[in-house]
Amino acid sequence: MPILNKDMSVCISLAGRPSNLGTRFHNFLYDELGLNFVYKAFTTDDLEGAVRGIRALGIRGCSVSMPFKEAVIPLVDVVEPSAAAIESVNTIVNDGGVLTASNTDYEAIAELIAENGLDPAQSVLVRGSGGMAKAVVAAFRGAGFDDVTVLARNASLGPALAEQYGYAWTAADPEPGADVLVNVTPLGMQGADASALSFSEEHVAAASVVFDVVAFPAETPLVSAGRAAGKLVISGAEVHAMQAAAQFERYTGVKLTREQIARAAAFSRVE
Amino acid sequence: MPILNKDMSVCISLAGRPSNLGTRFHNFLYDELGLNFVYKAFTTDDLEGAVRGIRALGIRGCSVSMPFKEAVIPLVDVVEPSAAAIESVNTIVNDGGVLTASNTDYEAIAELIAENGLDPAQSVLVRGSGGMAKAVVAAFRGAGFDDVTVLARNASLGPALAEQYGYAWTAADPEPGADVLVNVTPLGMQGADASALSFSEEHVAAASVVFDVVAFPAETPLVSAGRAAGKLVISGAEVHAMQAAAQFERYTGVKLTREQIARAAAFSRVE
Repeated sequence: MPILNKDMSVCISLAGRPSNLGTRFHNFLYDELGLNFVYKAFTTDDLEGAVRGIRALGIRGCSVSMPFKEAVIPLVDVVEPSAAAIESVNTIVNDGGVLTASNTDYEAIAELIAENGLDPAQSVLVRGSGGMAKAVVAAFRGAGFDDVTVLARNASLGPALAEQYGYAWTAADPEPGADVLVNVTPLGMQGADASALSFSEEHVAAASVVFDVVAFPAETPLVSAGRAAGKLVISGAEVHAMQAAAQFERYTGVKLTREQIARAAAFSRVE
Repeated sequence: MPILNKDMSVCISLAGRPSNLGTRFHNFLYDELGLNFVYKAFTTDDLEGAVRGIRALGIRGCSVSMPFKEAVIPLVDVVEPSAAAIESVNTIVNDGGVLTASNTDYEAIAELIAENGLDPAQSVLVRGSGGMAKAVVAAFRGAGFDDVTVLARNASLGPALAEQYGYAWTAADPEPGADVLVNVTPLGMQGADASALSFSEEHVAAASVVFDVVAFPAETPLVSAGRAAGKLVISGAEVHAMQAAAQFERYTGVKLTREQIARAAAFSRVE
């Protein structure tokens, strides 16, 4: 890293539980590409004040994570379709005082569905009903999947999300049999839920694709179980890298190569 | 610099015309001392929003420069005597959401008056009437000087400042003859006023001490004229280094040695 200077553009993140992923991913590439930018993760207990600070300090971009993805919507000036359709924001770009919100998680998930050749005829079981689950369900709908079930204990958010896209909802764990398992809960995430397997071994055995959206660690219990069972595995590490690359492009105007994304993602995971 | 991480404490500055001095001074020492801190200069057109952002983002400290030194007072929670007495703030420390304002310029100037052995019997001519001039005039009063004249075109601020400390005010350049000349205007500062000599050659010839508060460049026309005439010169570079060191201690809890301050100050001036 160069010594900081007054002219650097500053990008930040706001998360209830910040990780080092974004701070390391973005700064690694700023340094490698010689961009006069710096990135730092923050948390806040005053989201409105934080957004006011973004405006007042001329902060260029802000990544938004749980639990702020919905609450930030009334605080920005423009909401792009990627965020408006799912009422969930993970990216804010500040263009001279105009804050534009988008959702690069949605874009990343849609790209991973296409890239991995998932078949719209497959049945999908999505576990979760938060902001990220909205991005996942919308991406499956966008990719033409009809047989999707939302598994969520929350009897308000779960059915609302499923109904919005014409899908089924269940509060109770269904019989194994779904072709594609997608975890969009914190189960398996570093912290209290780290050892939790988000779908049973039986579900994994019956599936052909295991997709975990948890970004840290990369090797969640579900990802490990999927690999051990020889399934096609899509990890939250891939989602994170791809959505971060899309943010990077919005903040800096620089489009990254696959190779740059892969190296920054690897660097972001070294503690 | 190490690659940034999410746990770093962040300090910033707010100035109408930011320089690189603080960003380089503080980051140099964070790096050398292995402190998990980072510092970045900002400007703003919304001071209230910036202070709200300091609270919401948990920013640890903020250096305050022209033109915000007075306006920031109603936005903080506690004003220390160093700032309250002169109604001018240059430092904010955030202790778990409680913002405490102080004025390390005042302290630095008082220290430089003592260190350089200025004699309270000397006559002093202070040019300027802004926030920094308040710190200068108060420090001369505190050091026991009785014969001080405030030279300021501003017919409201100038006499108010002089009267507050029982000193004289003049709007017109007086006859040369003051023992100590102190410039507290932007004359000689990098930018539009860079070539301006803040006191005439005749004033310099008649004086024994030349004191310039302009911090950048270190070698202002007044400082050069003072050195050329063999006068005792106190530069804004010294004021800046000393007040920055006092801020550093408030932000980090680490007291710097003279040698550390000197090296950080030298580093801060290399572009």
